[in-house]
Amino acid sequence: MAQVLNAYPQVTAALLLLLSVLSLAAGGKLLVVPVDGSHWLSMRELLDALKQKGHEIVIVAPEITMFIKPTKNFVMKMYPVPSTQEEMDENFQQFLRDVLQEGSFLERFLKVYEGMKRVSDLAVSSCAHLLHNKELVRYLEESKFDAVLTDPVLPCGPILAEHLSVPSVYFLRGIPCGLDFEATQCPNPPSYVPRAFTEHTDHMNFLQRVKNLIFEIPNYFLCDFAFQPYAKLASEFLGRDVTVPDLLRQASIWLLRLDFVFDYPRPLMPNIIAIGGVHCAHKKLPQEFEAIVNASGEHGIIVFSLGSMVSEIPMKKAKEIAEALGSVPQTVLWRYTGEAPPNLPKNVKLVKWLPQNDLLAHPKTRAFITHGGSHGVYEGICNAVPMVLMPLFGDQMDNAKRVESRGAGVTLNILEMTSKDISAALKAVINDKKYKENIKRLSDLHLDRPIHPLDLAVHWVEFVMRHKGAPHLRPAAHDLNWIQYHSLDVIAFLLAVVLLSLFISVKCCLFCCRRCCFKKGRTRKPTKSKSH
Amino acid sequence: MAQVLNAYPQVTAALLLLLSVLSLAAGGKLLVVPVDGSHWLSMRELLDALKQKGHEIVIVAPEITMFIKPTKNFVMKMYPVPSTQEEMDENFQQFLRDVLQEGSFLERFLKVYEGMKRVSDLAVSSCAHLLHNKELVRYLEESKFDAVLTDPVLPCGPILAEHLSVPSVYFLRGIPCGLDFEATQCPNPPSYVPRAFTEHTDHMNFLQRVKNLIFEIPNYFLCDFAFQPYAKLASEFLGRDVTVPDLLRQASIWLLRLDFVFDYPRPLMPNIIAIGGVHCAHKKLPQEFEAIVNASGEHGIIVFSLGSMVSEIPMKKAKEIAEALGSVPQTVLWRYTGEAPPNLPKNVKLVKWLPQNDLLAHPKTRAFITHGGSHGVYEGICNAVPMVLMPLFGDQMDNAKRVESRGAGVTLNILEMTSKDISAALKAVINDKKYKENIKRLSDLHLDRPIHPLDLAVHWVEFVMRHKGAPHLRPAAHDLNWIQYHSLDVIAFLLAVVLLSLFISVKCCLFCCRRCCFKKGRTRKPTKSKSH
Repeated sequence: MAQVLNAYPQVTAALLLLLSVLSLAAGGKLLVVPVDGSHWLSMRELLDALKQKGHEIVIVAPEITMFIKPTKNFVMKMYPVPSTQEEMDENFQQFLRDVLQEGSFLERFLKVYEGMKRVSDLAVSSCAHLLHNKELVRYLEESKFDAVLTDPVLPCGPILAEHLSVPSVYFLRGIPCGLDFEATQCPNPPSYVPRAFTEHTDHMNFLQRVKNLIFEIPNYFLCDFAFQPYAKLASEFLGRDVTVPDLLRQASIWLLRLDFVFDYPRPLMPNIIAIGGVHCAHKKLPQEFEAIVNASGEHGIIVFSLGSMVSEIPMKKAKEIAEALGSVPQTVLWRYTGEAPPNLPKNVKLVKWLPQNDLLAHPKTRAFITHGGSHGVYEGICNAVPMVLMPLFGDQMDNAKRVESRGAGVTLNILEMTSKDISAALKAVINDKKYKENIKRLSDLHLDRPIHPLDLAVHWVEFVMRHKGAPHLRPAAHDLNWIQYHSLDVIAFLLAVVLLSLFISVKCCLFCCRRCCFKKGRTRKPTKSKSH
Repeated sequence: MAQVLNAYPQVTAALLLLLSVLSLAAGGKLLVVPVDGSHWLSMRELLDALKQKGHEIVIVAPEITMFIKPTKNFVMKMYPVPSTQEEMDENFQQFLRDVLQEGSFLERFLKVYEGMKRVSDLAVSSCAHLLHNKELVRYLEESKFDAVLTDPVLPCGPILAEHLSVPSVYFLRGIPCGLDFEATQCPNPPSYVPRAFTEHTDHMNFLQRVKNLIFEIPNYFLCDFAFQPYAKLASEFLGRDVTVPDLLRQASIWLLRLDFVFDYPRPLMPNIIAIGGVHCAHKKLPQEFEAIVNASGEHGIIVFSLGSMVSEIPMKKAKEIAEALGSVPQTVLWRYTGEAPPNLPKNVKLVKWLPQNDLLAHPKTRAFITHGGSHGVYEGICNAVPMVLMPLFGDQMDNAKRVESRGAGVTLNILEMTSKDISAALKAVINDKKYKENIKRLSDLHLDRPIHPLDLAVHWVEFVMRHKGAPHLRPAAHDLNWIQYHSLDVIAFLLAVVLLSLFISVKCCLFCCRRCCFKKGRTRKPTKSKSH
């Protein structure tokens, strides 16, 4: 057979072409470099959908993870990292303890900063172990992927995509420092697009706009600093100097978990696809939960979760919350894995896990107590459940503000809130009809869409696999520097031309005037001399 | 019955509510204020689709039109205008004759300008006759529409929508002077978004960027002047001072006939929905055309049309074209209603009308000779047929440039082209495989979309009808003035603070220094005096 193939190179070429056509028809090959934690949970829904469409999915992840666990649905390529599961869990729990610890602002800031630094260092180290894993990288090189799907908030996937020369699709909620908008060349006016951590809405007064612009300044140097370890890693690995924005600019499609019932209207670029609510598909409620909901009577239930990553909170806080929950007639389903507070009222059921989205979808659900993570907030919106928000860190304060500004929830400061505050907030969102009306309106708008965001996400991943990228959506702005983009060189040139023209005109006028005066002077003088 | 209703106001209210719910379930009520000509042809496809979904469609149009004719599918409200059909047709034909007339640039420019002025005056007069038609306006006021669908390139519909306080959806290719982007607060950087009539691509060198910025300047005063008659009409009719941009800002959704395989990638706002290719749905080819195509043999056919609005061209030009068409082996189907040139070759069939899109869809179609109107170009792209473009006026030169820059067609200057040029262009796009490959690639990208643009357009019209607008897509930028939008006030304030701080710091330093020196001076002086 080999001889035949050698003898007839055309036959070999035709066979190879046939094979590649057949393999494409049977589905493409997708490399996935996910980010752990809640980021993984919504990406998995997309991967399930892509798997159902017949694509081969290879996931690269460290052996030590929170949620990314081996599954037979996908090819899992787990690579060793030096830390242990216990170290990682403890690291994250310590970070949460720091967040929830009371104390002076500076003290808390420094603690939280240290915690974030630890978590971030761990991620960089994990990325380094992936890139230096020669065997794994060789396997990836030989695998001939059609596309890379990754969450660029930790830019390890983009480095790998660049090395493999494979087009990439990003799946994300956002990148710190507005790097997502910088890398897509997407206009981002600070006059009405609120910056992270400002807790502003899109309608700002003068002082708020001043604050918004001031919050922009650290982006120009702090973020370079934050992403420096990845830039160093990438430069070493790729053998040439690159920055993280350089890498991000290569993405074909940005699947952004954004929707304008929740986020504020702003410009977007053609390769940014808004897929907020991508993970809101419902499954059947498990029997044990169905039973609890049905037994809740006319008052219905409250769903309470501070997110999949928060397993415990300080006992003092837990007691306050328990006391407040006892003051409402609803049954409360509280996802909590820490020690149960001793004053836990009868209407509160602690569970280690709950099907949050499916519980929220139940018509008996009256309110949702959440930490304001974007996944939870979208589930609240999808299911039209008014919210009490207790933001902890990251974008959660901004998310909470957005829900509150739409009149669809009440925000509490988790450090300062008392039992009474929680009780009052809960009673407000349950009994004051305006909260339900507002969240219902948002939900109606959100769900009235021409195509489900999950189908949209699947389409664009497949698009990039089919067409080897989406170059027709890449703006020419990528080929301009800052001065050119803002037309500063053109404006300077036109100004110079105008000024030069003015200068020459004035000089000419002066010259003419002088000539005239001189002539007059000359013609007059002789007359004068004559008269004398 | 009336007594019963009077006695029980609750019953009346309940009945009214029931009626309104039933009427909404049966479909909404849409007022359409279309623009005649080719603009109408694609809008009609959307109206047919909306009619099929059970909506009541009321179309308001002047009695004298080119293409908008009474049909039983829609409620047609035709209002009288003073001009006659002959006058209007002659007006437009004269305009086309001016466009095709040879002569000096200034001569042609003035003639074309005069022609456009005449056509534009006619449109303003038609709008005035609509707004002053009290009976018709009263009928519209009483009709309680759910939304207005209009093409704002002639902003009569927006005036009516404002008067009726009904949310509006715009269906358009664009508005002169970039008014569409101004009114949507959509960033429009002149550094890579080519301006109309420049014939630039999105990749411009320095001098092209200078030209692009210069072409922006007239927008600031010429366009105010052009839209002034509508502003005057609107201000009189609405009883308050309004400008055309004021009116356009009220639109809920902008359905823009734009797609990034044809237009260059640029920022868009959330309420701008790209629906390029909306009219490309195929119907069955009529038998007589099927017969012609089948009889064309291995060489296939060429489709030739200068658009639905061009009925004749100068005989000299027609002869040149006829001669060129004789030089290719393909059968040419030429839509032409003027006098047949005497040298018409055997392979050319003149027809008064042709099913352009369905002919282009036939696999035997080898090339498309078009004037470069956006509808035709989209049909060329949808059906992957390479083009020879002979642009006449308006956006056609820019459209032609775009197709050419993508390597999918050849542009000819209709005034200067010779028979040889036409023949060479035709042979190139038919025989040089790269044209077919390029248009095939564009077509593949264009057709690979998550939802058909017609369904997308229907969705958003229905969305606005269901939700009485789309306020969640309206950017807060509308509430800022130019200085605020660009943060100039904030920058000035921050600069002032920095400068003031610097000034105070310097003053303090100087003061301290002086005090130090003075003290030193004082302490030294006595020493000095002592030493003496």
